[in-house]
Parts: sequence; structure tokens; C-alpha cells
Amino acid sequence: MLTISKRGMAMPASPIRKLVPFAEIAKQKGVKVYHLNIGQPDIETPKTVLDAVRHTDFTVLAYSHSAGNESYRKKLTEYYQRKAITVTKDEIIVTTGGSEAILFAFMACLDAEDEVIIPEPFYANYNGFAVAAGVNVIPVSSSIQNGFALPPIAAFEAKITPKTKAILICNPNNPTGYLYTKEEMEALQALVLKHGLYLFSDEAYREFCYEGTHISAMHLKGIEEHVVLMDTISKRYSACGGRIGALVTKNQTVLDAVMKFAQARLSPPSFAQIAGEAAVDLPENYFETTKTEYQSRRDLIVQRLQAMPGVTCPNPGGAFYAIAALPVDDAEKFCQWLLESFEYKGHTVMLAPAGGFYQTPGLGKKEVRLAYVLNKTDINAAMDCLAVALTQYPGKTV
Amino acid sequence: MLTISKRGMAMPASPIRKLVPFAEIAKQKGVKVYHLNIGQPDIETPKTVLDAVRHTDFTVLAYSHSAGNESYRKKLTEYYQRKAITVTKDEIIVTTGGSEAILFAFMACLDAEDEVIIPEPFYANYNGFAVAAGVNVIPVSSSIQNGFALPPIAAFEAKITPKTKAILICNPNNPTGYLYTKEEMEALQALVLKHGLYLFSDEAYREFCYEGTHISAMHLKGIEEHVVLMDTISKRYSACGGRIGALVTKNQTVLDAVMKFAQARLSPPSFAQIAGEAAVDLPENYFETTKTEYQSRRDLIVQRLQAMPGVTCPNPGGAFYAIAALPVDDAEKFCQWLLESFEYKGHTVMLAPAGGFYQTPGLGKKEVRLAYVLNKTDINAAMDCLAVALTQYPGKTV
Repeated sequence: MLTISKRGMAMPASPIRKLVPFAEIAKQKGVKVYHLNIGQPDIETPKTVLDAVRHTDFTVLAYSHSAGNESYRKKLTEYYQRKAITVTKDEIIVTTGGSEAILFAFMACLDAEDEVIIPEPFYANYNGFAVAAGVNVIPVSSSIQNGFALPPIAAFEAKITPKTKAILICNPNNPTGYLYTKEEMEALQALVLKHGLYLFSDEAYREFCYEGTHISAMHLKGIEEHVVLMDTISKRYSACGGRIGALVTKNQTVLDAVMKFAQARLSPPSFAQIAGEAAVDLPENYFETTKTEYQSRRDLIVQRLQAMPGVTCPNPGGAFYAIAALPVDDAEKFCQWLLESFEYKGHTVMLAPAGGFYQTPGLGKKEVRLAYVLNKTDINAAMDCLAVALTQYPGKTV
Repeated sequence: MLTISKRGMAMPASPIRKLVPFAEIAKQKGVKVYHLNIGQPDIETPKTVLDAVRHTDFTVLAYSHSAGNESYRKKLTEYYQRKAITVTKDEIIVTTGGSEAILFAFMACLDAEDEVIIPEPFYANYNGFAVAAGVNVIPVSSSIQNGFALPPIAAFEAKITPKTKAILICNPNNPTGYLYTKEEMEALQALVLKHGLYLFSDEAYREFCYEGTHISAMHLKGIEEHVVLMDTISKRYSACGGRIGALVTKNQTVLDAVMKFAQARLSPPSFAQIAGEAAVDLPENYFETTKTEYQSRRDLIVQRLQAMPGVTCPNPGGAFYAIAALPVDDAEKFCQWLLESFEYKGHTVMLAPAGGFYQTPGLGKKEVRLAYVLNKTDINAAMDCLAVALTQYPGKTV
């Protein structure tokens, strides 16, 4: 009999994308939808980066090296050096998006039934890769009350079992925007050293820190063998569609194992590696400009949210996400209602229900994630919609 | 303690790529290496296909739909219709190369410990995806003596257990070049129907058939729910670096499950989808030209191989590979020796030892796979090298 696999059934639908059909219906009705549900920035990809692809003159679109073009990996070492991360080209494996770096790390370091501890709420697709790899995600809860700071180390230790192989953090955090402090990173450093764990560090949003300094897991001394960096050009250069990321580690055994997975899929995409290589030569003020833009959007969206009755929204220190607790019965129902049954001046807003970012059932039920990836005019219009919607929603609680 | 996963250890190094370091050493010594080891065609990617990417004028390199751009999927239905395959855009999920289509099919249809039967020798990376998915590959041996024809159906049935979920074929075959006949395809049709199995059909080389007609698994009537097509633009348009493939099926349950894996990794690469879409509009004679070129290369390489004392090489009906049995003690040792210790007029040749394409230990030990992806001048030069090498190799057996 033809059956789907258990993992095929267990695979979670993306909370970021599962409302898409409702958004399509809204659009078919002529309603303009402000997309705050997905981290697809409206920031233009730097022209020189796109032009590097447009000005290519090769005649065969060939496989690259399975670890990525050597010229690109060399160039990436310059980028990392500017972030005070000293690596060689051989410590970098170019991946198909940050996604593949996550999958490779899970596959190479953990077996089925092994456990990875992740502070929740967390990037929902970690669950997808964990299901694909048969790995169990063990959540440690952070909370909106203290702005989603790192949970106490004792809470991590309480979850460590003989099956625990890794701790995974996203810094600055998606979906909370939280930027881990030096003290928090040092606490993680001691923890992974004490228990012999990998520290997987997803630093997709490294460039976007508004409060304090980014401490990379690669900056931590004495745990070089433990650290696997998962990286991507998607957000850094607003180049999400390129599907170019990187797995970076000084652990040669991990590199060797990951390389075999990389060889099986032959190579990462060629066009976007060219884009990524060109991007390393962008002037430093490129990041200042984009960071300033995101910071002003963050200031606006947080201010607007905090002004809404019954809404709680901590000020995120980095990335381009905020989580807000809303005065509604159920955020998922509310988000669907926004698309199906609501409009304000012909507009509505699409948000990501935060429940899908928590592993523990019931947590985040009244929370939504907002990606401030639209310009301030659109953010204001989206917040106008949200403010009105919260007064009209049948399940409102204030 | 930090350990690599069991699957990380079990993951096979690619037999196509694991000799690469030896080739690099040869090149550093100034020896020119003819690469017959990998299916990277020298055929130019059609200029209009590359130009479609070069002439884009978008400003944000954005995520595409997780199933691929709708416009591309619509266009692909035209391509398939020309191949007498009637599908809708919703029956196509664009993947990151054919590689991802294979991984998704394994992940969505089979659980860990489930079994997929594959005629051997087979594309070695199936093993990699099987290890990644925890799936067991059960080989059914085909043999160079009868030109790698489909093994008898009784041989398949002897391997079917309650854990068998699918049969996977590659047609025309990589690495053997064998093109399955109508009778063979109908035998498989009856088999999967009788036992309720999936038929995974990798048709990456559909365009390159020199003897007889290509019968797609999608042409078989009455098993539409069983068939999952794994496809790619890599070979069709000499666009390997694009990393664009497709999983095509009429089984809605499979589509739904695969879609969740597709959502987890967000989207396939954007640039090369544009290339793929443009490629569908190539004139039909594009394939005639490339096919004629490959056919003349096949004729040449097979003739040269058959003329070497002690060499056996069946005439492949499709794709751009041939397997040859060589008069050597061990093909892997021989291939390494070609790179490390041999040169002829400053040249040598890189071949893929065929042992890595067999699952059954010991099979294919004296065989190599040759990809005829070089022009005829280079093929002649490579065959000159091989002919001399076979007389000089210390482990020669004639």
C-alpha cells in the first residue's frame, strides 16, 4: 500500500507560510496585504551584487566545488576577519542557504533520537530540519516578560540527558529579536564545555544589532571544536532568493562529515555564489545604511505596538523581528481572521502566529511575530490596520 | 563528548569526487587532466538561457514560492506536454537540483529502515541521500554481460519485504547509459501495482537517447499514484550549476508531504529558475544538436574502448555515460595511479571507479564509469592516455 512516511506526516507546516492560501484569497478580493509575516526584506539587494551576476561571461553554468567556489570561500575569510572571526577557506563549506547549513549540522553531528536543546520561541524551520534528521528538539523556554533573555543555565542543565548532543542558538534571535549579551554567551561557553556539547550558532542577523555588540560563538575561546556557525547571505545583503549560506567550523571531523553530505548534493548554486563574492567588497557603510533603516523601523513598530491597548512588545535588540502579545483569544485565529474577514481602507496585515515558534504546547498562543521588513509608510499603514482590527476582532479580550 | 553521528560516519564519500585531491596534485605538477569522471558537460549552456538571468532587472533577490515560481511551473507544464507528460503546475515542486527531488522523495515516502530497491550499478549519490534519510538501499544486480539491462522481475520480487516501499530507476541510466525498453517499463508497472510500491523515476537524461524511444514512468497508465518523477535541468541544458530540478507526481498526498519539506528550506534558487523558464522556449532543434554531438562522442569513446585489449564496453543507449571493464587488478587503485603516477605527453585521465556505483561488495571492482562530456579531440586524447596507461599500469592483468 502506498503510504507517506511518519516523518512526512510529522513534518510541521511552516507557521510562516501556512496562512499563505488565505492571503492569496484576500488578494484575489482586491485587498492589499502588508506582509509582516515573513523575513523577506523590501531593502534592495545592492546593485553591484546583482550586477556581478548580470555581468558574468562564462559559457557553461557548471557545478562548483561541493564546498563552494574556492574564490568565494577565500573572499568570505576577509568578511569574517572584519567580524573578528579568523577562519581559513577550508573551514568554510558554502551551503544552499542557511537552511542547508542547519540540516547538515543536524545530520553530521546528531543521530535519530539524539537531542538538541533550543531556547524557545525559536525559528520554526529548526523543527522541520529536526524532523527530517529524526532529531528531537528539547525546548528551554524564554519569556516575553523578561524580553526573551537567555533562560537560566540551570534550565538548560535540567534538560541535558545522555542523548543531548548540541545547543542551538540564533543570535540575534529570530523570532524574538533578542541579542545575547557577553555574559550570556560566556555562560553558554561554560555549559557546552562542561557537558561536551556542540554549540550551533545561527548568526543570520549578525549585521543588525541596535543595542550592544554582537558576540559571535566564534569569538568564544577554548570551545573552538564545539562551535558550528550557520550563516547566510539572505538577510545580510537582502539576497534571500540566492540560497547561499555557509557552515563554518574549526572542527575538522565535523568538516569532513559535512563535506560528504555536501558532495552528495554536488554543489551549491553557482549564480548566487558570484553575488555573494561580490558582496564582500561592498563598502562598510552599506551595513550602516541598512542598519539605520531597520533601527528606525524597529523604533516605529515597537512604539506603535506599545501604544495599542493590551499589547505587550519588548524592544528587540537586533534582527528585524519583534514578538508582541496581543489581547486576543488565539493569535492563529486572529491572523487568519485578519486575512479572511477583515479590511481597513482596503488593506489588511499578515502576521505570523507565534505558537508555531514554541515547542511547548500552549505557549505563545496570544503572541505574533512581526518582521519589520517594510518601509515606514507601510509599517504605519499596517499598524493602523492592526489597531483597528484589535477593536473589531470578535475574539478580542480587552 | 563531541562525536560525529553514525550517519555522518556511514555517509559514503562520493566515488565521483573522492579522487579530486589526487587530480589537484596532478594539476599542480603541470599535468593536464581529462575529466571523464563527472557528468559536467563541456556543452555550452544556451546563451538565451544565461542571458535571461543577465537581463533581469529586479531590485530585490527575493525568496520564490516554496514550490518554485508559478510562472516557471506553468512553463514547465509546456515542456512536459511536449514529452507527452500531462501535468498541471500544482503537480510540480521545483527543487534545488535533482538532488533535492531525490532527498524529498525519500524523506516524504520512506521512514528510517524502510527499503528502496534499486538496480545496481546506480548513481552513487542515491546512497548518500539514503543514508541521510536512514533508508536502506536494496540492490538488484544488473550486469555488464547483458549490457546492464533491467534485471529479471523475479530478482526484484525476491528482494521485496514488508519494509519495501519503492523501486527507483534512472532512465536512461547513470552510470550504465542503459535505456529501458517499453517491455521493461511495463514489467515495472505491473510490479509496483502488484506490490503497492512507489516507482521513483530519475529521468535526468531524458533528452539523450540514441537507440529507441524514451518511455517515461509518467507515460505508464494506471500507476499514476505510484509514480514520482525526479527531474533536473542540469544535463538537459548543460546547466548543472543552476541547481534547479523538480519533483513531479500526481499523488496529492505525496505533494502535500513534500511541500512541507520544501517550505522548511524556504525556496529553490531564484536566479536559475529564471534560466529554467527561458530554457523551455529553446527551439526543438536545440536538443537535436546536443544529442547528435553526444551520440558522436559515444560512438567514438565506445569504439576506442572496445579496441583496447582486454576491455569490455557495452554500447550505451542513452545518457552520456559508459561503463567499461578494464584488464586491471582494481579499478580504484588504477584510477588513483592514473592521477598520482602516470602521464602521457603531459596528460592523464580521470575516471570514476565503478565499485562505488554498486551496493554489493566486490561487484564492479574492475569497472570504471566514463562520462563522455568532452569534445571528440579531448576524448581521443584521453583514450590515447588510457590505452598507454593500460600497458604501463603495474597491476595490469593482460
